[in-house]
Amino acid sequence: MQGPPVVDELQPPNRTLMGPGPSDVHPRVLGAMNKPLLGHLDTAFLEVMDEVQELLRYVFQTSNEFTIPVSGTGSAAMESVITSLVSPGDVVLIAENGYFGDRMAEMAARAGGEVSRISAPWGEPLDTGSAERALKQVDPDLFGFVHMETSTGVLQPEVATLTELAHEAGALTIIDTVASLGGVEFRTDDWDVDVVYSGAQKCLSCPPGVSPVTLSDTARDRLLDRTDTPRSWYLDLALLAEYWGDERTYHHTAPISNVYALRESLRIVAEEGLEQRWERHERVASGLQVGLEALGLDLATDEAHWSPSLTTVHVPDGVDPDTVISRLLAEYGIEIAGGLGNLAGEIFRIGCMGYSARSANVLHLISALGQLLADEGAKVDVDAGVAAASGVLSDGSDQTHEPSVPM
Amino acid sequence: MQGPPVVDELQPPNRTLMGPGPSDVHPRVLGAMNKPLLGHLDTAFLEVMDEVQELLRYVFQTSNEFTIPVSGTGSAAMESVITSLVSPGDVVLIAENGYFGDRMAEMAARAGGEVSRISAPWGEPLDTGSAERALKQVDPDLFGFVHMETSTGVLQPEVATLTELAHEAGALTIIDTVASLGGVEFRTDDWDVDVVYSGAQKCLSCPPGVSPVTLSDTARDRLLDRTDTPRSWYLDLALLAEYWGDERTYHHTAPISNVYALRESLRIVAEEGLEQRWERHERVASGLQVGLEALGLDLATDEAHWSPSLTTVHVPDGVDPDTVISRLLAEYGIEIAGGLGNLAGEIFRIGCMGYSARSANVLHLISALGQLLADEGAKVDVDAGVAAASGVLSDGSDQTHEPSVPM
Repeated sequence: MQGPPVVDELQPPNRTLMGPGPSDVHPRVLGAMNKPLLGHLDTAFLEVMDEVQELLRYVFQTSNEFTIPVSGTGSAAMESVITSLVSPGDVVLIAENGYFGDRMAEMAARAGGEVSRISAPWGEPLDTGSAERALKQVDPDLFGFVHMETSTGVLQPEVATLTELAHEAGALTIIDTVASLGGVEFRTDDWDVDVVYSGAQKCLSCPPGVSPVTLSDTARDRLLDRTDTPRSWYLDLALLAEYWGDERTYHHTAPISNVYALRESLRIVAEEGLEQRWERHERVASGLQVGLEALGLDLATDEAHWSPSLTTVHVPDGVDPDTVISRLLAEYGIEIAGGLGNLAGEIFRIGCMGYSARSANVLHLISALGQLLADEGAKVDVDAGVAAASGVLSDGSDQTHEPSVPM
Repeated sequence: MQGPPVVDELQPPNRTLMGPGPSDVHPRVLGAMNKPLLGHLDTAFLEVMDEVQELLRYVFQTSNEFTIPVSGTGSAAMESVITSLVSPGDVVLIAENGYFGDRMAEMAARAGGEVSRISAPWGEPLDTGSAERALKQVDPDLFGFVHMETSTGVLQPEVATLTELAHEAGALTIIDTVASLGGVEFRTDDWDVDVVYSGAQKCLSCPPGVSPVTLSDTARDRLLDRTDTPRSWYLDLALLAEYWGDERTYHHTAPISNVYALRESLRIVAEEGLEQRWERHERVASGLQVGLEALGLDLATDEAHWSPSLTTVHVPDGVDPDTVISRLLAEYGIEIAGGLGNLAGEIFRIGCMGYSARSANVLHLISALGQLLADEGAKVDVDAGVAAASGVLSDGSDQTHEPSVPM
């Protein structure tokens, strides 16, 4: 008999999560996970499921009946829509201008799709003209792109136009909002988008583990009319529709506590108001952006494609980004991240998402990052950075919706 | 702009979860979910990951290096091993004597496997002789079966023998321990099993959302030597091996809070001791079994294949099982379940798992179920049931390891 290992009580160090996700979780959301479990087929839990669906429709700005959380993290939501909508031989066009577009393409290939890619340089959005040409040339069944590319910080503009172009080409759109939903304007119905998925741990500030998905009636009909079998059972949305819909057919045991947490995080979004929340992200992240520039850093994303949820800056010459990131975590408890893929070693990625998007966090970050960069030999002006951020964050604009620091 | 829905604070009713899962979660485990998040690549979280892997090796009784929690519920773990080990054209033999064997076969088919089934009647285990013949005849690459079939309550005996037969036929074994691991004897290394998966929310009494998987070195090598691409990206264990292994390559954002919870639930297993825990399940469930028989009910599973984690009894004549199940929940707050599939309407399924496996719960259940059945017109002897259960539960055997009622 192999003996038991001795493992101490969990004492995670305090962190301020200002990376590309997860973000800090509101104490009310952590508290919701502390509630006792209900069975996954208990009528009281079925009511919770209905409430979560209603709240998700609000945050997606949709009346789509098919609006559910998938039982996994953001990548599970991504694969659920791809494996469920892509039959072998279907033509799938994916915009690839970052890490997560690449992931969509990889999943579509695994689902058996014939994948074409429109590439744009990492750090730039997809160009509407290129998209139009590619849609005409490739004639896809599905067109997938990322609203806010976590690997580069680029926000894709003209979602409604891209969707219209896709529809003219006879394709449905699949849009990744993992790093934008709940923090940056996104309007599913107004923009006529077909399929949207997201994650819990970014602008919704909920622990990862359940991930929102919504399908228009057209997309849902495509799903339900499909005659072959999707390549995944766990992520088959047609089966999930029967569990989350009126049938309540058992599929798998939902992650009860994560559903509780998502419900509470969405309640907080509803209380704050979605537009107010978008405005808060914009205001707080502007403070971050202005502060970083005043430190003397160069933004890595064009102002026109900047996303409030994630700001990227070039690593100053002569500075080792990993050292700065490690020291920021060890000495100040602040998490930020470096670049991924093509941008590894080139940029810092600084998130401003959900409960993390607070003035105090931004001021602390600008001050700490500035001091560390100076200590590592970069030419930065710490006082100017803090003053500039402070100017934006204290300009008298309405801060009533900024969540207070936990007790 | 669509307005926000108004949803009240979450107030789940108190339940005693005595169904086939989830089970009640220990307050310490709920408390672990209340801790603030770490980033999924934070060195402090990487340490938590190592600890969880070490604790999982103990509960699996294995030294397998590849031992991880998959980021999803038990069915995600099931599909992760199947989609990762089954290439299109691989021959997969599945024992089907209940709902979950059927699910394994379904997943293997979706992975592209050529599936053969050995069937046994629902409510009976797989017969070793039939397995031997089928293995010779089918000559599979993989042989999957369920250790404890949640749909019927049947515990599969002779796991080591079945595994030996599979190895003689050149097949690896895949064993489902979703409803047994941590509550019923299972010895991965001693029984020479190749692949085992489980769930968190049954005998481990952890909220669902992460699910243990272990692969022998042989199975891991098969995985890593595979030249084609598994059909799922999210559940591709070769990619997960790089995140959970020394490389720490980013794959997806782990469900941080669920990993915290699993860690705490496994610490509780280690503190109690695995053998002591098996003994507690056996003792408390014996009280349940004896009490149900003394009420006058007929057990639905042969004594030889009875599993302490789930006891099944026939629904008495003239009683509507759904009415009894609903009333038990509404009037006593106790959750049990009816039959699934071929056994729908025929049986009650009563769990005795993890933190739910306590004498007080069993006595309450026997008393409440007895009174309800009497009220619904069944011939039961409530006093005899309670007395018999009480006799077993208070026979002076060591109860020091039974977890106390939460404060």
